[in-house]
Amino acid sequence: MTEFTHDTAPTQFAEARGIRFAYRRFGQPGRSPLVFFQHFMGTLDDHDPALSDAFAADREVILFDNAGVGSSSGTVPDTIEAMARDAINFIDALGLTAVDVVAHSMGGLVAQEVALARPELVRRLVLAGTGPRGGEGLGALPAWVAELFTRKYEQQEDMWLPILFAPTQTSQAAGRAFIKRILARADRDAPVTGQSIAAQRAALAAYGAAKDPSYARLKGLRLPVLVVNGSDDIVIPTINSYILQQFLPSAELILYPDAGHGAHFQYPELFVRHTQIFLDD
Amino acid sequence: MTEFTHDTAPTQFAEARGIRFAYRRFGQPGRSPLVFFQHFMGTLDDHDPALSDAFAADREVILFDNAGVGSSSGTVPDTIEAMARDAINFIDALGLTAVDVVAHSMGGLVAQEVALARPELVRRLVLAGTGPRGGEGLGALPAWVAELFTRKYEQQEDMWLPILFAPTQTSQAAGRAFIKRILARADRDAPVTGQSIAAQRAALAAYGAAKDPSYARLKGLRLPVLVVNGSDDIVIPTINSYILQQFLPSAELILYPDAGHGAHFQYPELFVRHTQIFLDD
Repeated sequence: MTEFTHDTAPTQFAEARGIRFAYRRFGQPGRSPLVFFQHFMGTLDDHDPALSDAFAADREVILFDNAGVGSSSGTVPDTIEAMARDAINFIDALGLTAVDVVAHSMGGLVAQEVALARPELVRRLVLAGTGPRGGEGLGALPAWVAELFTRKYEQQEDMWLPILFAPTQTSQAAGRAFIKRILARADRDAPVTGQSIAAQRAALAAYGAAKDPSYARLKGLRLPVLVVNGSDDIVIPTINSYILQQFLPSAELILYPDAGHGAHFQYPELFVRHTQIFLDD
Repeated sequence: MTEFTHDTAPTQFAEARGIRFAYRRFGQPGRSPLVFFQHFMGTLDDHDPALSDAFAADREVILFDNAGVGSSSGTVPDTIEAMARDAINFIDALGLTAVDVVAHSMGGLVAQEVALARPELVRRLVLAGTGPRGGEGLGALPAWVAELFTRKYEQQEDMWLPILFAPTQTSQAAGRAFIKRILARADRDAPVTGQSIAAQRAALAAYGAAKDPSYARLKGLRLPVLVVNGSDDIVIPTINSYILQQFLPSAELILYPDAGHGAHFQYPELFVRHTQIFLDD
């Protein structure tokens, strides 16, 4: 498998409970595979090769479209909990019994529900730019941020520049480098549909509306967690990363400066080093 | 210099403006020396050899007693700003023009004032278990925490177990290992005096009382900063570490789980790795 990279790994398919899941798998077998959970509106092509190729040097990396997303069949459900059931079905279909997870934004919500539903399945969890169920401002974007997700661009991937990166020269330059990286692969995934976007938006709103100031649900996540974010996340406010660290039984928090919702794409080398230390500790 | 370690480096003295500063210096010359700034009631002997010996492998480490503390002459002033002037005099006396700093608790307040007063002198700053001027609960300990600093023990260093570590089996075990490490050195520093404790306590209270919800002072600290703390710091509440990250122009935050005010003593190897990445980046 090691001959493949992020840009050359073929898209494969796994069947589970009537869904045909699209995925890409590459890297060095040995450790627990590292499964990436994707953000709102994201497909296989929105993962950063600077991360997946770096991790693939000494472990297997698995990228997948959850049910109804991109090249996967089915429809996107309108709850995070149902998305988690789909993700579990995918992981089970590959015959994996223990995985590490890097989960971003909405993917971080789904990954928490996976680990709650199947604690033995997730060994270690990295949560980037995300928050707890009922988190502050979660699924309730200010109008100016919501508008960023509907704006049209000549090169549509440029939509991620104001969403994932800070409005500074340094962060925007890192953002442009990220966009270039995610556009490099020739064999592209299918785009997201209107249905999948609408269902994801509904799921985010419902998950954010489930308020519990004691965040009791987090006590069930007893695995080691690394929480990562930028200093000013406009999509899932940074305070939610602090809340995750404070309420999870065993979580480390890393916040990066001059960065937003995509801080791990802004500092890929630093994020990989920090995450490798966490995963291998 | 490389033959000396934390436990064998002789205590030396440097004269500046009428003060005779006690210090220990060891490690591998080359990079900017790493100067440690000490906490409330701490002397040369309260630094952790697991940190200083690890850093000394590829840089020089300098431990010092500020004016009026331990084996240094003079009296402890009753403001953080005056302590910073003393620390600058000490660094200048060694002829150093650029240093990196690891500063803990009260030392973190002093180090911020050093970097504000002499920006060119401090290259990178690591702030452990500390907060901003006017920080939440800073210098205003709850009675049950204040009492921990006056309690008598058969082995007095055991006072740090409830102050620096979390009330869990794992954290207390790490605390006992830390106490053993700081007791290993044969040639001991002089103890702190009642005068120095009273003046430090007054300085902490005054610094904490200088409220400014905009934390405008932090904007002057333009150097790269790494902020580190435990998940529940009972001495300088953990939220202050988050505030530092949010208001400093360029700060990374790392919070460790199951840990308190002395998180960097609880996870010395992890802290050293994270700090080396930060210092060498």
